[in-house]
Amino acid sequence: MRITFCCTDTKPEPWLQGLQAALPQADVSLWHSGDAPADYAVVWAPPQTLFDQQPQLKAAFNIGAGVDALLALQVPPQTKLVRLDDAGMSVQMAEYVCHALIRHTREFDAYEADTRAGNWSFRKPLARADFPVGILGLGVLGARVAQAVAQFEFPVLGWSRSPKHIAGVQCFSGAQELDRFLAGTRVLVNLLPLTPETENILNRHTLSQLHSGAYLINVARGRHLVEEDLLALLETGQMAGAMLDVFRTEPLPADHPFWTHPRITVTPHTSARTLRSESIAQIVGKIHALERGEPVAGVVDLVRGY
Amino acid sequence: MRITFCCTDTKPEPWLQGLQAALPQADVSLWHSGDAPADYAVVWAPPQTLFDQQPQLKAAFNIGAGVDALLALQVPPQTKLVRLDDAGMSVQMAEYVCHALIRHTREFDAYEADTRAGNWSFRKPLARADFPVGILGLGVLGARVAQAVAQFEFPVLGWSRSPKHIAGVQCFSGAQELDRFLAGTRVLVNLLPLTPETENILNRHTLSQLHSGAYLINVARGRHLVEEDLLALLETGQMAGAMLDVFRTEPLPADHPFWTHPRITVTPHTSARTLRSESIAQIVGKIHALERGEPVAGVVDLVRGY
Repeated sequence: MRITFCCTDTKPEPWLQGLQAALPQADVSLWHSGDAPADYAVVWAPPQTLFDQQPQLKAAFNIGAGVDALLALQVPPQTKLVRLDDAGMSVQMAEYVCHALIRHTREFDAYEADTRAGNWSFRKPLARADFPVGILGLGVLGARVAQAVAQFEFPVLGWSRSPKHIAGVQCFSGAQELDRFLAGTRVLVNLLPLTPETENILNRHTLSQLHSGAYLINVARGRHLVEEDLLALLETGQMAGAMLDVFRTEPLPADHPFWTHPRITVTPHTSARTLRSESIAQIVGKIHALERGEPVAGVVDLVRGY
Repeated sequence: MRITFCCTDTKPEPWLQGLQAALPQADVSLWHSGDAPADYAVVWAPPQTLFDQQPQLKAAFNIGAGVDALLALQVPPQTKLVRLDDAGMSVQMAEYVCHALIRHTREFDAYEADTRAGNWSFRKPLARADFPVGILGLGVLGARVAQAVAQFEFPVLGWSRSPKHIAGVQCFSGAQELDRFLAGTRVLVNLLPLTPETENILNRHTLSQLHSGAYLINVARGRHLVEEDLLALLETGQMAGAMLDVFRTEPLPADHPFWTHPRITVTPHTSARTLRSESIAQIVGKIHALERGEPVAGVVDLVRGY
C-alpha cells in the first residue's frame, strides 16, 4: 500500500514517521509531482496537480476541520474525501469560545485596563440572562461548544441546515428559521462549514438582527464574514465587539484595520489545532476499515459541501 | 418580626426594599447603634457593636461566601451564623477559574502581545495532560469549579479537610494527604475557607511541591497566601504566574508589587459577587424555616470555622 502526504503549512517529518510506525507494511512518503500511484493521500490544501496525477486514489484524508479548500479542486470521482471525526478539536473549540464569552461578559479586558492604570475598580455585574449565545452550525464542533456554554448557565440557541435536537439548546434550522435564531441571539458563535450557501453569511443584514450590542466569535472561516460590514456595525454600536480567529486572507495583512481595532481581538487561526497523534490514529483506523470494504464516518457529501 | 441590615461596602436601599417586599409583615431597617432589638440580622463584615447590642438575634445571615470576618467577632451564643447556599456564586467561580485556566494554558496573553506587535505568530499547542488542576477546598464552590474544569478534559485533583467523593476528581483529604495532592498539581486553585488552619497555607513550602512552572489562581482570601513567598518563587521560575482576586489588604495598596508584576494578573475581588435577588430569596426561605422551628442549611460550625 502506498500513502502520499501532501499538506501545506505542515512540518511533514513527524507525520511521515507517525503514519509509517502505525502502518509498517505501507510505503509512506512525501508527495512529489510525478510520483508513482498511491492508494491513499493525507492532505491539507493540496495543489490540483496531486489529484490530476493521482486519479486512482481511493481516499484523501483532510487533516483540518474544514474541507472548503478541497472542494475548490477537481477531485477524481472515485476518490472519497474524508474528514476526521474530532481528533481533539472540539474541546479546543469549547475552550476558545468559552474563554471569549467569559472574557466579554465578565469584562476582563476592562478590568485589565483598570489594573494597568492602578485602579481597584467596581463594575456592576452583567446578567448572564442578557447574553443569549447563538451557535451557527451544530456539527461535532458546534454541539460540543453548545454543551460547554450551557454549563455556564447562559441561554443557548443553535442553528443548522437540517433540524437537530440537543438537550438544553433551543434549536433552529433552515433558511426560514435563521431570522428567529438571530433575533434571539446576543453573542453569535460561527462554526459553520464554508460552502457557497454560507459564504458571507455574517453580513450587515444578518448581524443587524442580533440584539443591540452584540458580540461575534468567528472560529470557522474568514469568508463567512463581510469584514467591512462588521466594521460599520461596530461604529454604530449594533456590534459591541468581536473575537476573530479566521480571516479572508491569512496571515492577516499588515495594514488590515482588524489588527488595531480597539473592540476586535485577533488570534492567528489558533482556536482548534490538528493534534497529530489523534489524527494519525483516526486515519489509520479509517484506512483499515476502507480496506475491509466497510463504511467510514466523515465522507464528504459533495452536493452538501461538507 | 424585626430585621436589621448591617453590611459594609453594600448599598443598602435595594436590599431593604427587596427584603421588605418579600416579608411585608416584617419591620426591615438599616442598623443603627441603639436600635430596638431585632429577630434577624443580614450582615457583611458588621462591627462588634451590632452583636454587643443585639444579643437576642436568632440568626445573622452572611451575604458573602466566607464567614471569616464574622468569626473574628464575639457572637452571642444563641445567634446562629448562617451562610447562603450558593446564590449564583458557584457558576461565577467556575467562569472565573476556567477563564484564568484557559487563558494561561492556551497562552492568550502571549498571543495578545504578538497581536499588539502586529505579529501573526505560531506557538506549539501545550498539552492539557501537562496541566493537572488541583482544587483546594471541595465545598459547594470547589465542587462546581472541579466539574467545570473537568469538562474541558483537564486532569482534576481535589483536596479537602474531610474526605469527599466527586466523579472525575482525584480526591485527597486531611493534612497527611496534602503533599501528594500538591505533588500532582500544576495549576492550583484556592477555594478554601479562611480559618486558623488554612491561613498562610499558600507558602514557599507548599507552592514548592507543585510541578515546576506552576500557576496559582486564588479566589478565596488574601490571607491564605504568603505574598512574598509567591514573589520569590516567580523569580526562581518554580511558579510561572498567578491570577489573584483577593489580597491581604483590599483594595490592594497603591505601592503593592502585584499591580505591575508581569506574571501576576490582579482583579479587584470580582470572582464571585453576591447576587441580590437570589440572596434575598434564600434569606427569606431560611427565616420562614427557622420560624417554623425547622433546621436550615448553611449554619456555621464555630469549631470547624466555616
